[in-house]
Amino acid sequence: MMHVIGVDLGGTKTAAGVVSGAGEVLFEERIPTLSREGGHSIVAATAELVGRLLRRAAGEGIDVGRVGVGSAGVIDAVNGTVVSATDAILGWAGTELASGLADRLGLDRAAVRVVNDVHAHGLGEAWLGAAAGSSSSLLVAFGTGVGGSFVVDGAPVLGHRFVGGHVGHFASPYAYHEGKALPCVCGGSGHVEAIASGPAIREAFIRFGGSADVPDTRAVFALAHDGDAAALKAVGVGAGAAGQAIGGLINILDPETVVVSGGLADSGDFWWTPMEWALRRELMAPLADIPVRRAALGNSAAIVGAAKLVLN
Amino acid sequence: MMHVIGVDLGGTKTAAGVVSGAGEVLFEERIPTLSREGGHSIVAATAELVGRLLRRAAGEGIDVGRVGVGSAGVIDAVNGTVVSATDAILGWAGTELASGLADRLGLDRAAVRVVNDVHAHGLGEAWLGAAAGSSSSLLVAFGTGVGGSFVVDGAPVLGHRFVGGHVGHFASPYAYHEGKALPCVCGGSGHVEAIASGPAIREAFIRFGGSADVPDTRAVFALAHDGDAAALKAVGVGAGAAGQAIGGLINILDPETVVVSGGLADSGDFWWTPMEWALRRELMAPLADIPVRRAALGNSAAIVGAAKLVLN
Repeated sequence: MMHVIGVDLGGTKTAAGVVSGAGEVLFEERIPTLSREGGHSIVAATAELVGRLLRRAAGEGIDVGRVGVGSAGVIDAVNGTVVSATDAILGWAGTELASGLADRLGLDRAAVRVVNDVHAHGLGEAWLGAAAGSSSSLLVAFGTGVGGSFVVDGAPVLGHRFVGGHVGHFASPYAYHEGKALPCVCGGSGHVEAIASGPAIREAFIRFGGSADVPDTRAVFALAHDGDAAALKAVGVGAGAAGQAIGGLINILDPETVVVSGGLADSGDFWWTPMEWALRRELMAPLADIPVRRAALGNSAAIVGAAKLVLN
Repeated sequence: MMHVIGVDLGGTKTAAGVVSGAGEVLFEERIPTLSREGGHSIVAATAELVGRLLRRAAGEGIDVGRVGVGSAGVIDAVNGTVVSATDAILGWAGTELASGLADRLGLDRAAVRVVNDVHAHGLGEAWLGAAAGSSSSLLVAFGTGVGGSFVVDGAPVLGHRFVGGHVGHFASPYAYHEGKALPCVCGGSGHVEAIASGPAIREAFIRFGGSADVPDTRAVFALAHDGDAAALKAVGVGAGAAGQAIGGLINILDPETVVVSGGLADSGDFWWTPMEWALRRELMAPLADIPVRRAALGNSAAIVGAAKLVLN
């Protein structure tokens, strides 16, 4: 049976695993992403990680010939290059990721495929996770950022410039403060990500009178659980904005199944319940019964989805 | 060369034409849609219209064997039935449109295909109109309602329940008045359609202090041209909301080309200029140069798109 390598290359860590044709991750390793050292160093370190897995697989008599990668950034999936990226990975834009890996690993260029990591994530959940068996699915992830992937017939809709799935960057009525649109990391303002991401919830907490000493979003959730008014407001508005945004996306795309993932979705009912309430409130009548599920594959979703790219 | 019939079945009129394999409309006829008389009467009248065109084609020695229909309502494109519809056409939901037409015309059931009229419209513009030659396109129409169609590789993305393309029904920060979300025709509130459709512009004009005697949207535009403050505000906010919405959709979908159509898009630069300004302000950097074009096929877009359904 065929095996491949799936790689999930993110802003802080890179994980890779040997994946069976059925989607089982046989073994997995991870390294910190060298996000301050430029594309060249990252490609070299990733090739080393994959090389170790290839040798380990060979040692166990498992033949692995192809590598699928889900990477942070806007990825040209035809050429396997990084079109653009945020400062989370310095010097990432312009990197020839697929050919760089293929050259270093002595693989044929066609044996390496790359997509954006959220698309890999969506593909993994569509194949074997919360949307398994659905002909179309929309994954929306709420964490450090807000991203998504609309997967139709087993393929993520990548977009003509490979920008498709940037579902955090449309207008949200919640992303305003005192009549002014909140700035968004994309350079625009008033977007869903500016109120519904994890960091945005921490910023809202401070705007609502909470202490600026709070270290992170997790601490804001802890305060909300303890009944702190500013924290309750920040979590409530973040969850409401998330649900309203997903509901609107459902009216636009009508996927068979919706999957919600990311750190906020994993944070429990405290976020999920108001999110789903706001989501269902948005839906047009024929969409009322749409299944909305928590992601099922956890951290391995992008590895499995990236593997799927080269299993077909 | 093959010829087919394309039908555009709307809330007020039904137009049909004989269309060549190259998309030329050889001749066209139209009738009022019997929108108060129920599905049965509408199917009978449509079959009669198509029958007349078939006889006229036969009289000119043109062989026509198939019929494509773009119809108002949510259309089950597999079974050719009307899933749901607004009160614009009473008794339309549940109508077996494809089989009803096939039976009355003595055609094989497989010779008749039906999709929603906005999807037919999008397909027409993608094939031969403003998005001809693009591998993917997004059509957004602003008129009595707001609708859209995302066409990828020559096929509209219909959605799992055939609801895809309802791009008027996601949240708009402009669709609020005195802190309260404006009601939307879908039953929800605060949606793009509630501020950016033609009737919504008339309602905004009245909210902004304009006279309730103004008969229609066209009259509001005439007042705006004359410098009336309430009319200028209403047109400005409607156009701004439209552009912001399209910009967000572009970030989500990344189509190769965007086509804007409908009565408002045809109303001239007075609407188009602020619309496009708001649109471009929303775009993420890699999308900055996306072409945004006026629809090119006019009233025949849906006929041509419906014909395309049965030409492949």
